[in-house]
Amino acid sequence: MEEPLPEKPPEKETGRLEAFSDGVFAIAITLLVLELKVPDVANTGGSPLELGKALLKEWPSYVGLVTSFFTILIMWIHHHAILRNVCRTDAWLHFANGCLLLGITFVPYPTSVLASYLETPAAKMAAGFYAGTFVVIAIFFYLFIRAAFRRPLLSANASEEFIRNTFHSYVVGPPAYLLATLAAAVDARLSLGICTVLWIFWAATITKNTQS
Amino acid sequence: MEEPLPEKPPEKETGRLEAFSDGVFAIAITLLVLELKVPDVANTGGSPLELGKALLKEWPSYVGLVTSFFTILIMWIHHHAILRNVCRTDAWLHFANGCLLLGITFVPYPTSVLASYLETPAAKMAAGFYAGTFVVIAIFFYLFIRAAFRRPLLSANASEEFIRNTFHSYVVGPPAYLLATLAAAVDARLSLGICTVLWIFWAATITKNTQS
Amino acid sequence: MEEPLPEKPPEKETGRLEAFSDGVFAIAITLLVLELKVPDVANTGGSPLELGKALLKEWPSYVGLVTSFFTILIMWIHHHAILRNVCRTDAWLHFANGCLLLGITFVPYPTSVLASYLETPAAKMAAGFYAGTFVVIAIFFYLFIRAAFRRPLLSANASEEFIRNTFHSYVVGPPAYLLATLAAAVDARLSLGICTVLWIFWAATITKNTQS
Amino acid sequence: MEEPLPEKPPEKETGRLEAFSDGVFAIAITLLVLELKVPDVANTGGSPLELGKALLKEWPSYVGLVTSFFTILIMWIHHHAILRNVCRTDAWLHFANGCLLLGITFVPYPTSVLASYLETPAAKMAAGFYAGTFVVIAIFFYLFIRAAFRRPLLSANASEEFIRNTFHSYVVGPPAYLLATLAAAVDARLSLGICTVLWIFWAATITKNTQS
Repeated sequence: MEEPLPEKPPEKETGRLEAFSDGVFAIAITLLVLELKVPDVANTGGSPLELGKALLKEWPSYVGLVTSFFTILIMWIHHHAILRNVCRTDAWLHFANGCLLLGITFVPYPTSVLASYLETPAAKMAAGFYAGTFVVIAIFFYLFIRAAFRRPLLSANASEEFIRNTFHSYVVGPPAYLLATLAAAVDARLSLGICTVLWIFWAATITKNTQS
Repeated sequence: MEEPLPEKPPEKETGRLEAFSDGVFAIAITLLVLELKVPDVANTGGSPLELGKALLKEWPSYVGLVTSFFTILIMWIHHHAILRNVCRTDAWLHFANGCLLLGITFVPYPTSVLASYLETPAAKMAAGFYAGTFVVIAIFFYLFIRAAFRRPLLSANASEEFIRNTFHSYVVGPPAYLLATLAAAVDARLSLGICTVLWIFWAATITKNTQS
Repeated sequence: MEEPLPEKPPEKETGRLEAFSDGVFAIAITLLVLELKVPDVANTGGSPLELGKALLKEWPSYVGLVTSFFTILIMWIHHHAILRNVCRTDAWLHFANGCLLLGITFVPYPTSVLASYLETPAAKMAAGFYAGTFVVIAIFFYLFIRAAFRRPLLSANASEEFIRNTFHSYVVGPPAYLLATLAAAVDARLSLGICTVLWIFWAATITKNTQS
Repeated sequence: MEEPLPEKPPEKETGRLEAFSDGVFAIAITLLVLELKVPDVANTGGSPLELGKALLKEWPSYVGLVTSFFTILIMWIHHHAILRNVCRTDAWLHFANGCLLLGITFVPYPTSVLASYLETPAAKMAAGFYAGTFVVIAIFFYLFIRAAFRRPLLSANASEEFIRNTFHSYVVGPPAYLLATLAAAVDARLSLGICTVLWIFWAATITKNTQS
């Protein structure tokens, strides 16, 4: 929080926005574990084998945890890469970032719902609610990019190519998650599969954007 | 934590106060999601439609989450803007900041109470408890501003206009939330509506204060 | 994490130890709110008055929350002030700091126990467990001070007077909390009262140490 | 987040990776306390003695908490020491670090399972699940080291000796925890004992690596 030279206050502003956002991303990603419930096998004999089976039966929780974890992680990495090109903040960027963070903090909840209902008759609704949450987050992420990549906020060494690539890869977010949401009406696992493909796709765009 | 020049230790002190406060704000804002409970529709058929209805019935939780989220976020942004004008800390600022943080960490609790009772006969008390919490926080915030904006702590480039504007917009905090608390005796949703108007009002003052 | 000059690596090490410790302090202090349980008044009429009474009956939780909050906050401020005099870390400081952090992360648990049993016949044991936890933490804190204030780790501008004052005020920690633990055998509230007096005492030593 | 000189962007990248990882480590280590449940002695008389006995009976939770706490703490210290030798990040390091963090955030869950079942007939499975989690984490940690210690990412002042020592001490991780997992088939406490020996072993390697 030093102010090395009075000519550079903008850097500092982005710094605290990033630090706060880092905190929210880190906490949301760690709270996912609280969705996992210790199985109760006391009433089914309680043998080691019973506990083993019960832990395996928790697999929808593990799938939900891993999918949500990497989706948030990828978004954090992009968030980070995006703000490297920005040196000023304003109220509108704060608001767009706030909406995005609201979406991120919400993720543990649909993840819990998905884990609780993936093997029940209500699986389709749970998967639709899960994918639907990411439709909203993808819209917020797109708004965040639009807010961040406005001319007066960009830093001097902002990369035009990175900005173009980011817009290209994130404009597909809302429709792609909408597809996953609609797919939930057909099959819950299909919807979850699309969500998995999507974070792998964005992970790949990181590689490309970072290396170019 | 570097100490670039022995002439500037004060900057560093504020830095760690800010970092710690950022952490508390970020955690409190993220813990709000833990108030959301996965609905149990196993005993009502458990169809996708039942789950969908049950998720919709959770709307008071969503409203509470969004209201508390943005109220805390706005306070964080102001907290940040205020400390940009301060370069020294002392015991009194630490204490005032501590009281404010105590209030912030408390927010998930009244939010939970509100979400649990907004659609029950006890709604008025729940809304009053929620708004009443913000009366106390608003008083702490005002004390924090008074503690921060004392002459010996201000940094050389502190903006007189910003300080005046901040006092003007925050002195209305305690009475405004008191009004929301009293309104709860009439109608719980009216009280919650006033709380919503208030964070939008302070969001607007950010814009004004940042742009001026 | 910049390395501005190769002559100053020690600063950096302390920096990350502090940042990690700040995180643990901030999270532990915020998790205290999770101990508060939303009262269930559905089966007692559920009128606003019933909810109000139920919220008031939670007062032991509020007392526990406030006491633990300020005790942790004061320890964080001292932790911070202590490390300002230190510029190197080693394995022993890491270990002593780790023990202290273990104690800090544990605090929400005895706070929960205290809040659950303060108005039951088991109150004395709950208060003894609460105060006893702080005996252990006070010992860890003293070990942490001894580890931090070794000659080779001190920074060039370390204040001899601050070091002496800190030793003086913290050597009383273990016996004082032991007294509070023993007092719990007489009366739970007496024990809790001593704990409150203690954090106010250490808060006062901050003022003195900061101003000197 | 200042960019002091355009020649040094790599430092900055590692900085945010470290800050985010610090956050995840700090939160995971603090969430361990949520596994502790307040004992319910209302139905067994509720005397202070009953509460005392109930708190003592929670000892498997305390053992699990301490073991997991120090295992995570030691990994954080090593994580920190490793990244001091690295000045660039790329997609592969981000991914390896992400897998490691996924493992770290998962730890509170097997800790909970272990605490719940250590004194039941299912203890062997619980201990095997606990140690098995650390097999996976040890593999991720080894991959993380391989990703971090690639030539193009190393900083100019990276220590060849430290890198060699780190590889030597961490290559034993996966087989050692595999041994602990297999030992669980014989005796749960034997398995937990091996896990304890292991974090002490790695704590000792810190001392050696730091002092050399």
